[in-house]
Amino acid sequence: MTKKQIHLNGFTQNSASPHAAGLWRHPEHQGKEHGTLAYWTNLAKTLERGKFDALFLADVIGVYDVYQGSNQAALAQAVQVPAHDPLLAVSAMAQATEKLGFAITASATYIQPYQLARQYSTLDHLTNGRIGWNIVTSYLESEAVNLGLSGLIPHDERYDRAEEYLDVVYKLWEQSWDDDAVVQDTQYIDPTKVREIAHEGKYFNVPGLHLIEPSKQRTPLLFQAGSSERGREFAAKHAEGIFTNTQNQKNAVAELQAFIADITERLHKYGRKREDVKIIPAVVPIIGATEEEAYAKLEEYKSYVDYDGAAALLSGHSGVDFSKLDPDQYVENLPSQAMQSRLQSYTSDNVDYRWTVRDAVLYHGLTNGSEVIVGTPSQIADRLEVLSQEGGADGFNIRQVVNPASFEEFVDTVVPELQKRGIYRTDYEGDTLREHYLGQGQVRLKDNHYGKQLRIGGEVHA
Amino acid sequence: MTKKQIHLNGFTQNSASPHAAGLWRHPEHQGKEHGTLAYWTNLAKTLERGKFDALFLADVIGVYDVYQGSNQAALAQAVQVPAHDPLLAVSAMAQATEKLGFAITASATYIQPYQLARQYSTLDHLTNGRIGWNIVTSYLESEAVNLGLSGLIPHDERYDRAEEYLDVVYKLWEQSWDDDAVVQDTQYIDPTKVREIAHEGKYFNVPGLHLIEPSKQRTPLLFQAGSSERGREFAAKHAEGIFTNTQNQKNAVAELQAFIADITERLHKYGRKREDVKIIPAVVPIIGATEEEAYAKLEEYKSYVDYDGAAALLSGHSGVDFSKLDPDQYVENLPSQAMQSRLQSYTSDNVDYRWTVRDAVLYHGLTNGSEVIVGTPSQIADRLEVLSQEGGADGFNIRQVVNPASFEEFVDTVVPELQKRGIYRTDYEGDTLREHYLGQGQVRLKDNHYGKQLRIGGEVHA
Repeated sequence: MTKKQIHLNGFTQNSASPHAAGLWRHPEHQGKEHGTLAYWTNLAKTLERGKFDALFLADVIGVYDVYQGSNQAALAQAVQVPAHDPLLAVSAMAQATEKLGFAITASATYIQPYQLARQYSTLDHLTNGRIGWNIVTSYLESEAVNLGLSGLIPHDERYDRAEEYLDVVYKLWEQSWDDDAVVQDTQYIDPTKVREIAHEGKYFNVPGLHLIEPSKQRTPLLFQAGSSERGREFAAKHAEGIFTNTQNQKNAVAELQAFIADITERLHKYGRKREDVKIIPAVVPIIGATEEEAYAKLEEYKSYVDYDGAAALLSGHSGVDFSKLDPDQYVENLPSQAMQSRLQSYTSDNVDYRWTVRDAVLYHGLTNGSEVIVGTPSQIADRLEVLSQEGGADGFNIRQVVNPASFEEFVDTVVPELQKRGIYRTDYEGDTLREHYLGQGQVRLKDNHYGKQLRIGGEVHA
Repeated sequence: MTKKQIHLNGFTQNSASPHAAGLWRHPEHQGKEHGTLAYWTNLAKTLERGKFDALFLADVIGVYDVYQGSNQAALAQAVQVPAHDPLLAVSAMAQATEKLGFAITASATYIQPYQLARQYSTLDHLTNGRIGWNIVTSYLESEAVNLGLSGLIPHDERYDRAEEYLDVVYKLWEQSWDDDAVVQDTQYIDPTKVREIAHEGKYFNVPGLHLIEPSKQRTPLLFQAGSSERGREFAAKHAEGIFTNTQNQKNAVAELQAFIADITERLHKYGRKREDVKIIPAVVPIIGATEEEAYAKLEEYKSYVDYDGAAALLSGHSGVDFSKLDPDQYVENLPSQAMQSRLQSYTSDNVDYRWTVRDAVLYHGLTNGSEVIVGTPSQIADRLEVLSQEGGADGFNIRQVVNPASFEEFVDTVVPELQKRGIYRTDYEGDTLREHYLGQGQVRLKDNHYGKQLRIGGEVHA
């Protein structure tokens, strides 16, 4: 019997040291070069050499300013700032590769759906079907105020708005043009095979037609990472890949199982099956030729983590100003139950050690809330196998600590180990990102996907 | 004495047959491939081989639907539809070239200035200073209604809004970060050298800092093409390159001289000199080894022009539905004086021939209102020399009829002729687009440019 296969994304952001606060100072970290084409084309080629499904680029359009009520710590440690636009290096990376996908984050809050649909269709054409969209609704107040909103839209309303946003882009991508609309005989386009979407809603009015003929995938492969009630519901309806974190390493398998059971139940509501969605936790592999070497490397990396930078990141993620907490306080003594349990999730891998706030913050600075796996390539493969086969994970976002060395090491040492075990591809089968994820031949949205069932004016098109 | 040098852009759009209606059917036209990376990287390499200053990409975010009150003709003849996003192939083209600039159109009407500033800064980093921005305020109703506006903003208000838009992006590009803000010692960024722009205005509130450290040029090279009173005033204040058209070939030199005199007077109001701005008319070269061959080629090209497609383009540009005019009517008999003079501008190169509406529309379909130069490479160089040395043009937007053959022919035959005459570079001198235009060493906005003089809260920064 064929063993369950895993999927892999390389996870980073167009910033100098996006997810490991302070690590830009590490001599192996080339993050200072993130504004150059060579940095991105080299990274893409490395991931393609490792047969990764995709490069996944996170994004924020604001600065972390919750910590100390200021952006100073974020600036000083380059915590996701500079924040370059993630869409713009894609065509150069596509040019340097043949199969690697690109899953790019864009917020459904700050750009009109008509524009976003055009951007992703353009990229899906240029890459020949290798584009994915990580749908976010944005959590930073510092984004909203600079982008024409007077403040952050409340969480649930962001999701209401995102629901309608998705309706608009599905109509543009799936319904506006028939597959055979581009005829190129006496006419370039047969106008009877193109239609205006006539969308009128609470948040958007979009009367027109999509500006772009159908690309290979039409709708880009859809990713989402919501963990809230609304976020999970949204993901179950729309996502084809769900990003998650298993913070508590001791309970990661049970955590994953519970998450997947919950998502599976929600999927059924939307007429979808478990296998229609890939569940992708993030992990931080720290690889050594021996276990000792790996742990020594962990300690070395830790020595580069910057407290203020890590606290700026954690404060931004949680909305709580960590400068108000005493770093030497024990986590179990924190007044807020929510805060206690959030930080305790980082601490439970060593039950005998009493974690301070400082310990937890520094740990977040290295891990960003993802599981750290320390060991030899074989030990890392063991752990991925457990998370996949027992936990049910379909694949992993591989996070970098130092870029691109973290990815190079993983590709050179862990990938062959996974391949040897028969749980990871030795070559790409399909050409498009959706095929990498959902199997050869599955270039378009599955028929049971909501986006394929929407109709303009009740008629069945395309 | 050194002869006056000319500048060259290759002018096109990410569409199948953008400016010559129906020419996509020509066997040499590869516009059907406009969605592929190879189409764009080959084009960029051709222009760089010809030492062009830049590839200039036009853009619209809507469909031409004034003609017959419908988008059918535009669709049938691919009149600037499909309309792919012009920003997204740039990094692949930059990867394939070393010096060529990219002047990309973006509307200051439909994207927040905070986002646009980020896009262009990201590209200026990735291209190492080779980015220009062609500022437009958009003229199609079909754009506005799909992008969150209930209708087109009135012309003058579009310019008021654009003025404030420019203030915002100048503050972000020029004032938010000091040159030495990125220190990369114990801090990545020195927070005391980065500042929030605190912009509060009628149309935009942007309190925050720019998300991106200074790129090589900071502000991209600024182009504009307004011909109205407000448009010229805007160009004189902001533009470093002004695109124009000399429609009436018999009077082109006088037309150019008058335009340049007008712009020069306006420039002085803003403390700028004539040489701070390059005036760039568009031309359509039709090249043959002999004059006869060139005219035969013109006739052959004309035979591909589609009446309805051309009328859709002209109706969109003028706002007048040409389907209401009899094609066989003589232009001089048209009831509207404005319409008559518009169309007559196309007709005056042969005073003995009575032009019909059909003639004028078909001519627009080939030329898009730009001067057609038919002849041998030497004759074309003659005409460019006249327009430059007598008319005062600083360079030309070279329009394609068939893509990329029009550019290849020009690079292979006319460019050597221009070089032989000593009026065109034999190699690039600087590295950035602004240096190509304004001279080696002029990487940033000139000190007398308005964008360099704006101050945040009255203080002098950067």
